Amino acid sequence: MKIALLGSTGSIGTNTLEVCRRYGIEVEVLVAGNNIDLLAKQIEEFRPRIVVSAKRANFDAPVVLHGQEGILQALTMCESELVVNALVGFLGLRPTLKAIELGKRVALANKESLVVAGKFIDVSKLRPIDSEHFGLWYLLQSARQPKRLILTASGGALRDWEIERIAHASLQDVLNHPNWSMGTKITIDSATMVNKLFEVLEAYWLFETKHIDAVIEPSSLVHGIVEFMDGSTTMHASKTDMKLPIAYALGIMDEPILSNVDLLAMNIAFRAIDSERYPVWQIKDALLQHPDCGVVVNAANEAAIERFLKGSFTFGDIAQAILQAFERFEGRVVNDIEEIFAIDEEVRNYVKTL
Amino acid sequence: MKIALLGSTGSIGTNTLEVCRRYGIEVEVLVAGNNIDLLAKQIEEFRPRIVVSAKRANFDAPVVLHGQEGILQALTMCESELVVNALVGFLGLRPTLKAIELGKRVALANKESLVVAGKFIDVSKLRPIDSEHFGLWYLLQSARQPKRLILTASGGALRDWEIERIAHASLQDVLNHPNWSMGTKITIDSATMVNKLFEVLEAYWLFETKHIDAVIEPSSLVHGIVEFMDGSTTMHASKTDMKLPIAYALGIMDEPILSNVDLLAMNIAFRAIDSERYPVWQIKDALLQHPDCGVVVNAANEAAIERFLKGSFTFGDIAQAILQAFERFEGRVVNDIEEIFAIDEEVRNYVKTL
Repeated sequence: MKIALLGSTGSIGTNTLEVCRRYGIEVEVLVAGNNIDLLAKQIEEFRPRIVVSAKRANFDAPVVLHGQEGILQALTMCESELVVNALVGFLGLRPTLKAIELGKRVALANKESLVVAGKFIDVSKLRPIDSEHFGLWYLLQSARQPKRLILTASGGALRDWEIERIAHASLQDVLNHPNWSMGTKITIDSATMVNKLFEVLEAYWLFETKHIDAVIEPSSLVHGIVEFMDGSTTMHASKTDMKLPIAYALGIMDEPILSNVDLLAMNIAFRAIDSERYPVWQIKDALLQHPDCGVVVNAANEAAIERFLKGSFTFGDIAQAILQAFERFEGRVVNDIEEIFAIDEEVRNYVKTL
Repeated sequence: MKIALLGSTGSIGTNTLEVCRRYGIEVEVLVAGNNIDLLAKQIEEFRPRIVVSAKRANFDAPVVLHGQEGILQALTMCESELVVNALVGFLGLRPTLKAIELGKRVALANKESLVVAGKFIDVSKLRPIDSEHFGLWYLLQSARQPKRLILTASGGALRDWEIERIAHASLQDVLNHPNWSMGTKITIDSATMVNKLFEVLEAYWLFETKHIDAVIEPSSLVHGIVEFMDGSTTMHASKTDMKLPIAYALGIMDEPILSNVDLLAMNIAFRAIDSERYPVWQIKDALLQHPDCGVVVNAANEAAIERFLKGSFTFGDIAQAILQAFERFEGRVVNDIEEIFAIDEEVRNYVKTL
C-alpha cells in the first residue's frame, strides 16, 4: 500500500508517518506548509516520489511542486489509492473533493471538509481520523439499535476558568491544552468548543442522525458514547494518542497499536457543556437543523481566529463573530459546491467588518 | 412464545414476570419455593398450566407438582422451548441439564450450573441472565479482536469496612447491599466476592478465554469491559435493573427496556479486588487453570453459607472453608456428570467437619 499524506509536519502528519514506519506503508506524496526543516527530514526517511510545499523550494525528490495547485496536481499524478488529508481549515476542502473525484479514498483529519461541504461528499469514501468518530464507529459496529450518539470534549484550556475572565484570555492561555498536544487552530477550536460543534456536524454526515450531543470528559480517555434503544450505553476509551484512529483509517486493524487505558487510574465524570462558558454551543441544535450553515460557522471561525491571532479580536470576540455570522446567514441553502466558496468569502468579508 | 419459569418469586423471577407482562409472553410453568402467597398471586395473574412448589400444596392450576422431581417432570411435560432457570444454588443444575437434554434453550440466572458443570453444558443453548455477561456479550458483538474481558463487582456490603472487622460481620451487615436488591445467597456471595469468582468461571465457559479479570465499580453502572487488541477499551453501562439482560434472554431486543444511565450523574472509578479484603480472590487464576474445581468451590461455599446462616461459622469462615476445600480437592478432574454430584457431596461433608 502507498499513501499521499497532506499535512505531514503537523501532529496528525507525524503520527501518520509513525504508523507508516511501524507497518511498512509506502509514502508516495508528502505535502507540508512552512516547516521546511522537518519536511526535508521526512523526505530523507520516506523517499516520496512527489513533494509539495507551501512555497517554492528545493527538495530531494523526483517531483517537487508547491502551493494549492501543486497539491491538486500531486493528487492527479500519484498512484496512491488512499489520501490522508491532515491539512488545516477550509484549505483542505479542494483536495478532499479532488481525491474523491479521482476515485481515491480519504482518511480525513481535515474536519472542515465535512463541516462545510458534507452535503456534496460521498462519505462511503471517507474514514475520519478523529478519536471521537472513531470511538462512535467502533461502538456502532454492534447489531443493536442506537438512539443517541455522544461525543466527548476535553473542555479546552479554559474549562476551569472563571467565566468572567474567559473573554480576555490570551493566545498563550488558550494554547495551554490540558490533554492533547495539537496544532494552534484546533487548540483554539477546542477552547471555544467550535471543534465539538464541527464534530457534531461531522457525526451528522457520517452517521446520518440528528440525535447527537456532547459532554465534557476532562481526562480525554472516553472519546465516544452510544446510547442504545434498549437502555444500554456503551463507551469507547483509549489513550490520548491519534495513532489508533490513524491506523484504522490506513486499514490497519486489530494490531497492538496502543496499550489499553489503565482502568484503575481512571476517574470518569462527565460535565454538561455550558453555553455561558462556551457561547457557540447555543447554536448546536440550530446547526443540526441547518447543516448547510456549516460553511458559515467555519468561515466566521477562521476569519475570527485570524483576527484573534493578529490581536484585533479578543478571545471572546471569536464566539461573538460566529454567533453574529450565524444569525445573519442563517437559513442559507447551498445548492452546489461553488456556492460554498462564494459564501465562505462573503462570511470572511463580513467578519472583517465587525 | 411461552416460557417455563423456575424460581418465580425471587428477584429474577419477579423481574422476568414483569417483562412477560409488558411484552405479552405466556407463562406455561411457574416453579417457586416456599413463598406460597406470592406464588398464588402469580398463578392468578399468569394462569400457568403447570405449577411446582417446594412442598405439596393446593393451587388453582391444571397440573400441580412439587419438589425437585416435580421440576424435572414439569420440564418434560411442558411445550415451552425456553426455560428461565432462576433457581438458587446447586439445586439448579439438574433442571438446566434436563432442559438442554430436552432440546430446550435456557435463560440462565442459576450461575452455579455453569460453575460446577460448564464442561458438560452446550453453551450455545444458553443465554446468561447476568448484567456482567450481558454487558460483555453486548460489547463482543463487534468484529474487533478482544484481548481481555473484565467484569465489574460492586464490592458487596462490606467493601468499605475496616479489614479487621470483616471476619465477624453479622448476617444483617452482609445483607445490606449498597446497589442491588437480591436474594440472601447471592448477597452473601457478593460480600465474599464468590459471586465474581463464579462469574469469572461463567465467562470462561461462555466466551472461551482465560483472559478474564474483575474490578470493583462501586456504583454498579458499568457492568462489563472489553480490552481489545488494538488498544481500544469498551464499556457497557446501564441502570442496575435486571430487566435488560432478562429481556434479551427472552429474545426481546432493541426495545425501550430501560432508560439510559444519566451520564452527567455518573462518576466512574475502578478499584482493584484486594485479596486481603476478599480472601477467595486468591484462587481466581488457579480456578481458571482448573475450571473442573468449580464444583469444589461451589459446594464449599454453599455448605459454608449454611453454617454461617445457622451461626456455626463466622462470615470470615466462609472464605476460609472455600480456600481449605480448594486446596484439599485441587486438581480433581471431573470425567462425567455423576462425578459432579459425588464431589459435591464429598466437599459438603468435608466442610461440615471444619
